[in-house]
Amino acid sequence: MSTDLKIFKIGGGILDEVSQLHRFLAELARVPGPKILVHGGGKGASQMLHDLGITPQMVQGRRITDAATLDIVTMFYAGKTNKQVVALLQAEGVNALGLSGADGNVIRAVKRPVTDIDYGFVGDLPADAVQAGLLHQLLQSGLLPVLCAITHDGQGQLLNTNADTIASTVARALTPHYAVELHFCFEKNGVLADVNDDDSVIPQLTAAQYQQLRSEGVIAAGMVPKLDNAFAALEAGVTRVVIEHAQRINEPVKTILCRS
Amino acid sequence: MSTDLKIFKIGGGILDEVSQLHRFLAELARVPGPKILVHGGGKGASQMLHDLGITPQMVQGRRITDAATLDIVTMFYAGKTNKQVVALLQAEGVNALGLSGADGNVIRAVKRPVTDIDYGFVGDLPADAVQAGLLHQLLQSGLLPVLCAITHDGQGQLLNTNADTIASTVARALTPHYAVELHFCFEKNGVLADVNDDDSVIPQLTAAQYQQLRSEGVIAAGMVPKLDNAFAALEAGVTRVVIEHAQRINEPVKTILCRS
Repeated sequence: MSTDLKIFKIGGGILDEVSQLHRFLAELARVPGPKILVHGGGKGASQMLHDLGITPQMVQGRRITDAATLDIVTMFYAGKTNKQVVALLQAEGVNALGLSGADGNVIRAVKRPVTDIDYGFVGDLPADAVQAGLLHQLLQSGLLPVLCAITHDGQGQLLNTNADTIASTVARALTPHYAVELHFCFEKNGVLADVNDDDSVIPQLTAAQYQQLRSEGVIAAGMVPKLDNAFAALEAGVTRVVIEHAQRINEPVKTILCRS
Repeated sequence: MSTDLKIFKIGGGILDEVSQLHRFLAELARVPGPKILVHGGGKGASQMLHDLGITPQMVQGRRITDAATLDIVTMFYAGKTNKQVVALLQAEGVNALGLSGADGNVIRAVKRPVTDIDYGFVGDLPADAVQAGLLHQLLQSGLLPVLCAITHDGQGQLLNTNADTIASTVARALTPHYAVELHFCFEKNGVLADVNDDDSVIPQLTAAQYQQLRSEGVIAAGMVPKLDNAFAALEAGVTRVVIEHAQRINEPVKTILCRS
């Protein structure tokens, strides 16, 4: 385990703005060493569903991935977004290679069981979902794998999987090969002590401090599942988790999560 | 050069019918040895362009790939079709891995120069377009590369490239590593002496015989560019070119093209 591997996850905010995406990818190209990029989807898929007259199915505030929706998100995430990101990285001199979970069987998911809600074609990731060997081989060849949020079940069915979950599951799976740093990149400078003050970045956050701030309501809403996920990755052997602004990955302002 | 490599190209007719696609992929899984699959697009992309109110731009009977069309064909070919094919091959126990030309810089194209017609975002392939090294490495790892008809220019621009051209250019590029067989699979049993008689397959066809049949008008229309392309590949060192029915790749009925 002689090298560090950095895994970056980007989401909708960056993907929706081409200029932001360009700038992020140019910064990413400057980061030394082996890297993996995981991306979610932007608003484009929702817009296309709307343009095609497909109404998003929502149950208890959660989107249901029906067959028509799966088709569109597969086209958008694995097609348009993934290939655009790969082509832009190639233009930056980075030998990127885009993958869905089906490619090389790199992420095999399990369709979420139907309980009170049927989420449709949504894939959850068991502990052994990721085939780390292929990713390791691609990294050793100097490639930068770009993973989209589409997986498969091994039986021919594509599935829609949360991109944060993919990033942390891939990070865990690669800990036998690398000291893994997991970077969640978004539109804020890090975890904020005051959600309205972008300069209130908490530079370091332990699990105990997180629980305290969460119980006080300082950390709330969308950050909670992200940080739960992040601390779980730390517990599972990921060396470091970083929460940072997608435009500032090469700057010192960020939140670094610590095991204790 | 101890092994044979078989490159299969499939097009619209098979991709438009899910049951035909399933059957072709099940047959493909039975073919021994290293393989590459190249696919074009089906009618789905045209239908989606229509559903989104994007009118296909045609000049002198040729489709122009404008930016909106490129977006849709990228989504369809690199997203939906490519990932569906990969997931179905995985279900057949074949470790498929989908690629556009941008992925791993595997096919770098040149945007077609504007002359009397501006074809838009269409990519032509120079002789050195294909990075054979990565394909060879993936094949050596037991993977089956699945190439879609989307390439890039190395400057961040995706391009739409003819799938027959991709298949023959990839075949040529891999001749230093393998004895390459190039298989064009379609909805007929081979090159027919009588286009209305599916049993009139010409089992072997030399370049001289082809020129004769072409001058007599026996071979015409869509078969001409396909066969020109195929004989050019033979001349360039491809060991064998086969024209066959996509549902019958493991049966003896087919046309084998011979150098002389």
